[in-house]
Amino acid sequence: MIEKLVCVNCGAEYSPHSADAPVVWMTCTTCGPAEGILDFHYDLDAVSESWLDSPLAKRERSHWRYAELLPLKESSLRNDWQVGWTPIIDAERLAMELGLERVLLKDEGRNPSASFKDRASSVGVAHALEVGANTIACASTGNAATSLACHSALAGIEANIFVPHTAPEPKLAQLLVFGARVFAVEGSYDQAYQLCSEACNHFGWYNRNCAINPVLVEGKKTAGLEVAEQVAAYGGVPDWVAVSIGDGCTIAGIWKGLAEMHALGVIDRLPRLLGVQAEGVAPIPYALSHGKLPEPGSGSTMADSIDVQVPRNWRKAVNALSAANGRVVCVSDEQILAAIRLSGRHGVFAEPAAAAALAGVVVAVDSRIIEPHESVLVMITGSGLKDIRSSIRAGGKPLSIKPDLASVEMAVENSS
Amino acid sequence: MIEKLVCVNCGAEYSPHSADAPVVWMTCTTCGPAEGILDFHYDLDAVSESWLDSPLAKRERSHWRYAELLPLKESSLRNDWQVGWTPIIDAERLAMELGLERVLLKDEGRNPSASFKDRASSVGVAHALEVGANTIACASTGNAATSLACHSALAGIEANIFVPHTAPEPKLAQLLVFGARVFAVEGSYDQAYQLCSEACNHFGWYNRNCAINPVLVEGKKTAGLEVAEQVAAYGGVPDWVAVSIGDGCTIAGIWKGLAEMHALGVIDRLPRLLGVQAEGVAPIPYALSHGKLPEPGSGSTMADSIDVQVPRNWRKAVNALSAANGRVVCVSDEQILAAIRLSGRHGVFAEPAAAAALAGVVVAVDSRIIEPHESVLVMITGSGLKDIRSSIRAGGKPLSIKPDLASVEMAVENSS
Repeated sequence: MIEKLVCVNCGAEYSPHSADAPVVWMTCTTCGPAEGILDFHYDLDAVSESWLDSPLAKRERSHWRYAELLPLKESSLRNDWQVGWTPIIDAERLAMELGLERVLLKDEGRNPSASFKDRASSVGVAHALEVGANTIACASTGNAATSLACHSALAGIEANIFVPHTAPEPKLAQLLVFGARVFAVEGSYDQAYQLCSEACNHFGWYNRNCAINPVLVEGKKTAGLEVAEQVAAYGGVPDWVAVSIGDGCTIAGIWKGLAEMHALGVIDRLPRLLGVQAEGVAPIPYALSHGKLPEPGSGSTMADSIDVQVPRNWRKAVNALSAANGRVVCVSDEQILAAIRLSGRHGVFAEPAAAAALAGVVVAVDSRIIEPHESVLVMITGSGLKDIRSSIRAGGKPLSIKPDLASVEMAVENSS
Repeated sequence: MIEKLVCVNCGAEYSPHSADAPVVWMTCTTCGPAEGILDFHYDLDAVSESWLDSPLAKRERSHWRYAELLPLKESSLRNDWQVGWTPIIDAERLAMELGLERVLLKDEGRNPSASFKDRASSVGVAHALEVGANTIACASTGNAATSLACHSALAGIEANIFVPHTAPEPKLAQLLVFGARVFAVEGSYDQAYQLCSEACNHFGWYNRNCAINPVLVEGKKTAGLEVAEQVAAYGGVPDWVAVSIGDGCTIAGIWKGLAEMHALGVIDRLPRLLGVQAEGVAPIPYALSHGKLPEPGSGSTMADSIDVQVPRNWRKAVNALSAANGRVVCVSDEQILAAIRLSGRHGVFAEPAAAAALAGVVVAVDSRIIEPHESVLVMITGSGLKDIRSSIRAGGKPLSIKPDLASVEMAVENSS
């Protein structure tokens, strides 16, 4: 039930029903691909009416339940792909430890390829099928590529993934097993990204890139829609939603979902956003206060999913943070490692970028950005199985013992 | 709604309401821990009645929906742990490739710690809480240990895991992140197993070991219960259910669930079982024809979850295969690698032991054990993320290219 597309830069409006719609759906024709990212707007009155006829509570427990708020025809929905409606873990002991009213961990690792990105890729692949594409492409070594490869395999279409030739083998393994064609480009990540865009133009491949394809952000949005619906069972809207920030699409998408549910009256108030960046890679605080990106820094972080010095969607992220009375905190790799352990001890195995969000909560509690009586939902955006090397760093060592009871007894005493 | 416990060896019956119930729930007092494994029997009339009052279709979409068929008090159910009700992928293209009516992939990698074993551990930990244990233990390096560590973390109780000191670091990382106390025993796996049993007796720890604790098998059973319910949406009961066999509990548990649903009238016929073993580690075919285990062989397999020369639950597995008019096939590591790719190309990333079940289907189709017009459901028992080294072996190499369009074009041509 799309009403229009609006350029986040100049405010130009586009009709989804115009003849050149599939083209303009990428970026604003005036502002171009670097700045002119579009945003979907829906006819919320029509959505409301539709939900009265067919209540959400009776629908599929997947993100396809939000059909009216997705940029897809009804016939394009893929209820057979079980994406979203991920569980929330009410970490009561963790809340006590942190002195908070409530800490909710939303476990996005339970998606088909074990990350949040499945939301975007599933909607992207469904849209590619809708517009008749039989090949889809992206440049990434991470969760976006994996989720694209997974959903392309489910759909039976070709996935072309561009990675820098230095990409680590474990990251490529999953792509290759899903049957994607993986191009290891002799060059940097930026060259791989550039080549992917050129190849999409040249071959007519569908471009799965959140930075220029707003359809993908609509997929990410479903996490916000879900949170709004699910928190009713956990004391209502939390005071904060914590998300780590890489290129900016994820936090922007989640906020868009929350805001739509607020406009639709599903929730009666909005949470604040806690954006979390890695200390070495933190352009967003600057962008938030200066309205533009800083010069790219040279730092890095173990949390590869948020290791982004030039976030392509910084504007959407900044807009979301402003609208949400949000705050941004930065965390060190040591704090991320501690948060991997903290999350694990409460039953959720998080990859570094996911644990970063929880690390940010710890920092925000310590610095009284989050007050003692408040509640927070943390987006655990990917499974720790995605990055086992970091898990090894976080996990520490087992207790070496001789094979007798006395040794067990001693080890138990020493480790208690 | 437990009626009794029956020894699978001598048929002795035990009441669950006797004063010494928690003790006899382990093994038959006559036959001992090696042979006297117990089996739960339920009052199915009472279950039927209860399901009439409160229909399954309206319940939680997790394995806790089967409350009446679990050895737990109602107050011990943990609806807050989202275990089971894993998705079925209807792999239509794969069915065409194999010349079958239908191929369904049940993706158990979607459980909390990404394997089938979460079913057993969640029920085990819930039972430990019910009987007042605050510490639970097992000997394993694999999915059983991980799922135990995960659910112990969710429950807030202590998990003690015994592993041989040679256990690979990636397998330990997840356990340690979940906060388990991991004993690296200077000795063999058998010594670690033995020490774990002694420690359970000595310290009064709850023993999470499927081989002697029938509560765990009831957790595994829920996969069979679920299959019976879910297949209604996929053409009804398939002709075959394919499962790989390690120590025998998994296939026995699945069969028990299917048989109970048949007895309850939820399904009107039973599938046949296709048990799959690795070529190098295949005691079950011998046990099936001779009624006892062979001398342990010296072979091995890349599929570590089924690398079991002396299956402790062989009798339950053999009973299930006999009752199910089942067949057992053996697969090579090469066939397992091919099946990892085959499963991936249809959207499901499988660990070796899970892919082995699909490899077995391919073998069974080639040898006409499974006929062309038949349908099969394959239990994908764990995520490929669990064993990334095998995924790398299966995945192959990316296409190395220079950063220009001509190179992309050439690579596309050569790889099509």
